[in-house]
Formats: sequence, C-alpha cells, structure tokens
Amino acid sequence: MPHSEIGGAGLRGQSAGSTALCTVGKSGTGLTYRGYDITDLANHAQFEEVAYLLLRGHLPNRAELDEYKTHLIGQRGLPKALKEALELIPAEAHPMDVMRTGCSVLGNLEQEEDFSQQLSATERMLALFPAIICYWYRYSHDGVRVDTQDTSEDCIGGYFLKMLTDKAPTELHKKVMHCSLILYAEHEFNASTFAARVCASTLSDLHSCVTAAIGTLRGPLHGGANEAAMAMIQDWHTPDEAEAKIMQMLANKDKIMGFGHAIYRESDPRNALIKAWSKELSTAVGDTHLYAVSERVESVMKREKDLFCNADFFHASAYHFMDIPTKLFTPIFVMSRLTGWAAHVFEQRDNNRIIRPSADYTGPEHQDWVPIENR
Amino acid sequence: MPHSEIGGAGLRGQSAGSTALCTVGKSGTGLTYRGYDITDLANHAQFEEVAYLLLRGHLPNRAELDEYKTHLIGQRGLPKALKEALELIPAEAHPMDVMRTGCSVLGNLEQEEDFSQQLSATERMLALFPAIICYWYRYSHDGVRVDTQDTSEDCIGGYFLKMLTDKAPTELHKKVMHCSLILYAEHEFNASTFAARVCASTLSDLHSCVTAAIGTLRGPLHGGANEAAMAMIQDWHTPDEAEAKIMQMLANKDKIMGFGHAIYRESDPRNALIKAWSKELSTAVGDTHLYAVSERVESVMKREKDLFCNADFFHASAYHFMDIPTKLFTPIFVMSRLTGWAAHVFEQRDNNRIIRPSADYTGPEHQDWVPIENR
Repeated sequence: MPHSEIGGAGLRGQSAGSTALCTVGKSGTGLTYRGYDITDLANHAQFEEVAYLLLRGHLPNRAELDEYKTHLIGQRGLPKALKEALELIPAEAHPMDVMRTGCSVLGNLEQEEDFSQQLSATERMLALFPAIICYWYRYSHDGVRVDTQDTSEDCIGGYFLKMLTDKAPTELHKKVMHCSLILYAEHEFNASTFAARVCASTLSDLHSCVTAAIGTLRGPLHGGANEAAMAMIQDWHTPDEAEAKIMQMLANKDKIMGFGHAIYRESDPRNALIKAWSKELSTAVGDTHLYAVSERVESVMKREKDLFCNADFFHASAYHFMDIPTKLFTPIFVMSRLTGWAAHVFEQRDNNRIIRPSADYTGPEHQDWVPIENR
Repeated sequence: MPHSEIGGAGLRGQSAGSTALCTVGKSGTGLTYRGYDITDLANHAQFEEVAYLLLRGHLPNRAELDEYKTHLIGQRGLPKALKEALELIPAEAHPMDVMRTGCSVLGNLEQEEDFSQQLSATERMLALFPAIICYWYRYSHDGVRVDTQDTSEDCIGGYFLKMLTDKAPTELHKKVMHCSLILYAEHEFNASTFAARVCASTLSDLHSCVTAAIGTLRGPLHGGANEAAMAMIQDWHTPDEAEAKIMQMLANKDKIMGFGHAIYRESDPRNALIKAWSKELSTAVGDTHLYAVSERVESVMKREKDLFCNADFFHASAYHFMDIPTKLFTPIFVMSRLTGWAAHVFEQRDNNRIIRPSADYTGPEHQDWVPIENR
C-alpha cells in the first residue's frame, strides 16, 4: 500500500483499479501523463496537444494537431435549448452548479447512445465547456448573449478569455492558459475522477460521468482550493500583513487552502510551473503586492508547518492577474480536467467491473417492528 | 474481507468506510435499515415512515408522520425556472437524464448554502422528484402542464401515479408503491450511493451528490435492470415461449437482467415481497400471461444457472400492471433511493475524509519529450 498513512479512511493508499494515464508521486514528486513529465508538457506543449495525448493515446504531429484544433473550433455552437436553459440560471448561482447543469442538459440534447460516440461526445464538451460558462456568465451578469461560435482564437484557453472579456487575449495570457490547463488536466484517482469511474462502472453514459465529476470537483476540499486561496489573500496589502494574518490563522487552527496534498509528500511539481507564470504576469500588469504576498505566505507555511504550495495556490494570483473573476476559477479546472475524466471513463469501460465496495456496519442490531400506535 | 471472490476488482469485498444505515447480506440473505428487517418494513410501513427512519434516525410516531407528510405535500410546487428548463427537454430524451438535470437545475435555484440545510434540501427533493419526472413526461409526451401542487394524494407513490395518469390511484396501487419505494430506498455501498459519498467527501453540496448518484444509477448494470427485464419479457406470450427464448439467450451467453447480485449469494430478500404484489396485480388487472411468463423465467434461471431474481425482476411486471411506462421505472428508483443517498451523505459529512484511492499504473515508462516537428 504505497502512500498509506491511515489505512482505510478515504481509501487512502488502497488501489481501486489500474490506469495507464498518469503517475502521481511515483518517483517522489513526479507527475506524468502517459509517461511524459508534467514539466516537459507544461513548458513545451499546447493544451490541445495534451488533450489529444490523454484522449487519443499519443502526441499529435503537426497535421493531426491542426486538424484537431480545427475540429474543436467547429464544435463551439451551443444548441438553442442549452442557451435557453443557461438563461434561466440566475447570476447568484454557483458557477460549478452552472457547469454541472450545462453538461447535464447537453446530455439530454446530444445523448451518447453507445460507447462508439465517446470520443466525439468528449470533444464536443471540450469545445463547449468554455462556451457554457461564458454564455451564462455574460448573460446573467452583463445581459449580453455572446456569440460562442467566435473563431478568432484557435485554442481553448484563448477562446475562453475572449468570450469572457470580449477582448483578444495577449500572447502571454494565452501561454499561461495553456500551462494552467495542462497542469489541471489529469491527476490519477483524485476524487472527481474516481467519481467519474464509479459512474462509468455501471456502464452509464459519458455525460452522467462528467456531471458526477463536476459535482465532486465543486467541493472545497477538491476544486475549490484556488478560489479559497484567492479569497484569503485578496485583502492583504503587504507581505508583512500577510505573515501576521497567516500566523493568526495558524494559531486559530484555521484551514489554509492551497497547501499540502493527499499524495505528494515533499512538493507538488505543478507549483513551480504556475508560480513562474504568476511572477511574469505580476510584472506585466504592474502588480505591487499580490505576488509578493503570495510568496510570503508560501515561505511562512514552509517555515511554520513544513507545508508546500500545491497546484492551486499560485493559480489564484495568476488567474487574478488575467482579470478572471474568482468564482470562475473552478470552472476553468473543469474545462481542463474533462480530458482526464473522459480518458478514465474510456479506460474503465475497456476493462469494467462495477465499483461496489463494502462497508463496516456501526448501526443498531436487530430492531423489532413496533406498530405506529405503540411508538 | 467479507463477500470477496475476486479481490481488488471493483473494490468488491473491500471496506470503503462505515455506515449505521444498512446491512446487506450480513446474515446470509438479510437486509436491514437501521436494524429493522426489510420484510417488516415492506409489510407494515408507509414509504414516508421509512424515509423518516433513514433521514431522521427513528421511526415516527403518528403525530410525527402526519406532520412529515403534511410538510412534504407543501413542498410540491416546482419553481418556475425549473418548469421552463424541463419544457426545453425533448420527449426522446432519456428520463434519467431528465431526473439528473432536474436535480441539478434545482441546485442552482435553491442552493444548499451550508450543511444545516441538508435535511430541508433533501425533503424538498423528496417532494419534487415525482413532480419533476411527471411534469417533463406529461409536457413532452402529452403537451399538458400538470399542476404539481395537487394535494389529492397524501403519499409520494400515490402522488406520482396521480401526476402520471391524471386518475386517482387504487388502494392496491398505492400499497404496491409503498412496498416498491421501501424496497429500493437503501442498499449500503451500492455504486450510486458510493458515488454520492465520493462526491460528499469533497464537502460538495447535496444537489451535486444526488446528481452524481442519479447519473450512476442510470447505468444498465445498476438501476436500469428492471427496464431491461421488462424489455426482455414484454414480447413473450406464453411460459413455454419464454422458456425457449431464455434457453436460447443462455446458449448465446446473452446477459439476462434482473438476476443475481454483487453481494447476495442465495437470494435477494426483496424479491418475494415485490413478487407477491406482482401476483396480486396480475389478478386484479386480468393479466393472462405476463406473471406466468415471469415465474417461468425465474424457474428456468434457477434450474439452469442457479441464479435467483433480484429486486428488479418482478418490479418489471408489477410496474407494467400499473400502466407505468417502462422508461419511467428507473426514475421511480430515484424517487426512493434519494432517501438512502441523502442519509449516506449526512453520514459521510459527519465523519469525513476525502475519498481518494490509489491506482496500479500500467502505462508507459518515462517518455522523452519530442518537439512536434519531429513527430
């Protein structure tokens, strides 16, 4: 049982199946997608190359990548009924509820009728998820119906920023989005992926699996961490103020989001990658304090608790520097992790047994029936 | 590791946590909810008593039950935006996609903002799930907008039949619905419940957990079995024809739905209970062959494969005798199992650790990065 400290609880360290997609912490701090190191992927690839790798099994050559991107661009049109459904959701809804609902509605309109459609259904979602969140956000917040069939940006990250802001994203922003989407794409049997596999194990359809995963990612112990990190640091104006606040939180035993990990023990290999982009963005936007605050929080957490930043912590400042509203951070995670979820669903279907564990019974022993008049 | 035949695959026989709600097969063929035997509950209780037991921890007395039912009746009004969303879903959609989406949309409109709302949010769903499926079904199939605030039936099963058919259900039909909803209410760590707990373990909201569970129940290896059983037997006109067809299916190694179980080894205690109601309904409606066909299938499967009927097999004929369309069988399961799912979510929240297993890696070893021009 690798990684196990407390056997049993939360199935930690227990194998729940096999995968060829990913290793997490196999050689200490490493993260690989189909054998490729996350650092190589994040430094050199476009997100669409990584999506192709996860979903189709190998890195595309130039012609394959061009064709893939062209295909995805052609899939950006939202069905009319889906637009109408999104318009019914109020501005104060939780954006992850919107993503979950958008995916679920899509499953009604474009049902995966058999598993031969799994790849095309996934690629439709890959194209549509940025459209779903931006269509709802812009309609409910600005009263604008965005044209999601916009083709001015050829990559998913740039397209998302264009839909959100109505402005062409900078080259720097597009590069950061590639890195961010790559870092979040896949992470072995994390809770949302495992939920997708449990769902897939009943041979349910892809939209059900992804809907389940979105709902699972929504939890503050999972996908919500970068939003929580942002909420924490946004009101701190100097590194010294941040240090004082963190020390107070630690004294109060408050949970501090964006640190530590269920699997990694020494560091999260994704942190250095997104941190470097956060720093570059900080300079580009003329940030006077948020990056410095973040670095101080990192060093205080290391000094006081020997805890390292996970992928989420510097994502908070990076997204903020790109003017992304905090409440849309986790939906970006969805746009990315969809690739891992779907690849795991394909894998589960290829070698399936229904996932049905047992439980330790802690309830009452036999109870005699008592008629209601005698209770 | 109780129940284990093949260690590992599908986590069969492995404990994934503890529960005080249910035992399955603990004393061979038994099934208990909080210590009460399923036979006592199904023979004596109303479904609302069992829902109360599962969700609130004890059987209600008369005053508590009356108040509970009155409360649920008062919760039957669908929000306007939810009605509009259901009207967008076409008649050819999968009814489980409709249930999944109805639950997800509700989560946008009536968000569970903190866990103190978990009981009221569950009871709202308990009242609304029959309304959701019937509103969509009647609108998309008959062009009728049913008034879901109808109070003519005081129990969930009778209310469902009234919404579906626009006729007052008979006493017999109401009794069968109580039994059926009780039998399907809870079953320990089955796949859909486990999906709900995985989702809950990230501290996500109740609607996400239930949405995940609905999508998981949708799979043909789980909730779809009674529909598949009905599809199989509906065209067989005599027991002899049924026997010939079953023998042919066995020779072809076709999967025959409604038989055997992941946990029970000798029999499913729910079968005798629903089978007795199917027989009584058969007589009441003047059935000439379907019950006899079902009995013959049961005996052939026992003789040829030593397999017993699970809860689903005689549910097929029982529901059919009540004129329930086959494609609504699994949504009834949802209306019932909601109680078990929610009770498990409460339990997970009370003693939570994120459910994050490990995996056995079967993929490629380290791959060197190759620039796209060299692929």
